[in-house]
Amino acid sequence: MIATRLTRALSIEAPILSAPMAFASGGALAAAVTRAGGLGLIGGGYGDPAFVEAAFRDAGNTRVGCGFITWRLPEHPDTLRLALERRPVAVMLSFGDPSPYAAAVRDAGALLICQVQDLPSARLARAAGADVIVAQGAEAGGHGATRATMTLVPEVRDALGPEPLLVAAGGIADGRGLASALALGADGVLMGSRFWASAEALTHERHVAAAIAADGDGTVRQRATDIARGYDWPDAYTARVLDNAFVRRWGGRPQEHRAAAAAQREGYTEAFRAGDPEEVGVFVGEAAGLIYDRPTAADIVARTVAEAEAVISAVASLSTG
Amino acid sequence: MIATRLTRALSIEAPILSAPMAFASGGALAAAVTRAGGLGLIGGGYGDPAFVEAAFRDAGNTRVGCGFITWRLPEHPDTLRLALERRPVAVMLSFGDPSPYAAAVRDAGALLICQVQDLPSARLARAAGADVIVAQGAEAGGHGATRATMTLVPEVRDALGPEPLLVAAGGIADGRGLASALALGADGVLMGSRFWASAEALTHERHVAAAIAADGDGTVRQRATDIARGYDWPDAYTARVLDNAFVRRWGGRPQEHRAAAAAQREGYTEAFRAGDPEEVGVFVGEAAGLIYDRPTAADIVARTVAEAEAVISAVASLSTG
Repeated sequence: MIATRLTRALSIEAPILSAPMAFASGGALAAAVTRAGGLGLIGGGYGDPAFVEAAFRDAGNTRVGCGFITWRLPEHPDTLRLALERRPVAVMLSFGDPSPYAAAVRDAGALLICQVQDLPSARLARAAGADVIVAQGAEAGGHGATRATMTLVPEVRDALGPEPLLVAAGGIADGRGLASALALGADGVLMGSRFWASAEALTHERHVAAAIAADGDGTVRQRATDIARGYDWPDAYTARVLDNAFVRRWGGRPQEHRAAAAAQREGYTEAFRAGDPEEVGVFVGEAAGLIYDRPTAADIVARTVAEAEAVISAVASLSTG
Repeated sequence: MIATRLTRALSIEAPILSAPMAFASGGALAAAVTRAGGLGLIGGGYGDPAFVEAAFRDAGNTRVGCGFITWRLPEHPDTLRLALERRPVAVMLSFGDPSPYAAAVRDAGALLICQVQDLPSARLARAAGADVIVAQGAEAGGHGATRATMTLVPEVRDALGPEPLLVAAGGIADGRGLASALALGADGVLMGSRFWASAEALTHERHVAAAIAADGDGTVRQRATDIARGYDWPDAYTARVLDNAFVRRWGGRPQEHRAAAAAQREGYTEAFRAGDPEEVGVFVGEAAGLIYDRPTAADIVARTVAEAEAVISAVASLSTG
């Protein structure tokens, strides 16, 4: 067992959160992570009310949270309201200023988790009264920025002081990552890629197979997947995906791609549904190189904790201070 | 005290190596790191024989190693010979295939340390018979590639197995970083930026002051510094420096810059000597955000070990497995 300030604050048994990944983190995954001792977060993503409603239904009475892409919320205020009515343990906001939504989250009795990618966003999260701050490195799959987990976590800790609950995200997929994050000053971890490749995730089997076959060198940060889907992401954020035929075709040609994308959108969506691993974005991080199978979320939580315990014990035996 | 397989193999007391930074790691720094219990590496860099000769002279009888930029060695075979005649403890090769030089290093009685940035270069290092493999994440200052320390270290460990001595580099500047690296499966750390900002480094005081003033968001990977100096680096490598006026002026304009660089080279060199923090590359990594002072190398080693011991003890107290 690994007990931290985070496990006490969230009333969980393992300091592990599953990332609220758009299109991958449904209610079954979130509930499975919580039942395994962590905290599962539904991927509210771009704000589709039907997805969020179904996910909370699938999670049943299990305590879960829900995450949203902050800059999309002005277009989908009803989806946040819908989520808050389901009494989530926590709402996680990422990619934008969380302050306009902090009061609504708090009034609904939910904890506010803010994911940050640099020092300014960490300070914004603190100012918004975040209960938990997730420092996300660029190793992460999907959207993120440029800083690495290894430096961002301790620097956010230094900048904000010892008090805030801090969670490390980006590149963490096993017990080594959990132990490492705790050493950097985090109170726990949020794992995306590892749960994206879990049995309960909505991820297509062919995408998981492609990630298992890939090593960590085989991912890249890019914008073509946003252009293809018509999402107007702020410049600060790119998305890490497997480096495949789609990315190689459109990378570095954003103007041509923008001109072509609308006509191709239906085909892109169809290929995504079919799990094509070459013609759409496969949203996994550098941790692809540390993913060798597709276990249940319960197995992932149990393995991660057991490995972290073994690692901590082995490292402690080196220190005779 | 933190004793690992690395400290035993290198007969050192702290699992800490100083990076062989071109223009910054002279003999005084290398010797100070070794005297403090780690292993200091002279920055043989681009192969200037006068620099290497002076550095070994300054190191005196203290056990030190020497590092080189591998792809430059064919132009400077005499400098490697010169270094080997000084009986270094180790030679570190980075950025290129080390195999053509492995026999000469071994025949001189030196250990071969290979720095790698991805899986293929890790396998090359192993095939060359490296005694120590340094896995360097893109957080690092100066030249590097794209992978992050957090994922590269455990993935190289998984790929090469438990046997090779593995050192983590990139983004490590304090005891949290050392403890974190050990948790990821490394046997020690190599620190660049932290020693770049030590009292003994050849770094200009104004560059150190600029790095102390910067946070970790204030660095960027780029190629303008290589164009300015006329170094023909392979495409795989970029250099992380502070994001300053020089970088903003030339970033994204490599062709114009190439056309202008030769005529401006003397001025660049002059500005570098004068410590101009805006008009030349300031070669520090994301760890700039974790650097708050310019202590001696002995202080850095002592602090890093003491902090790592405290961190390891604190993390161990969380685990009740």
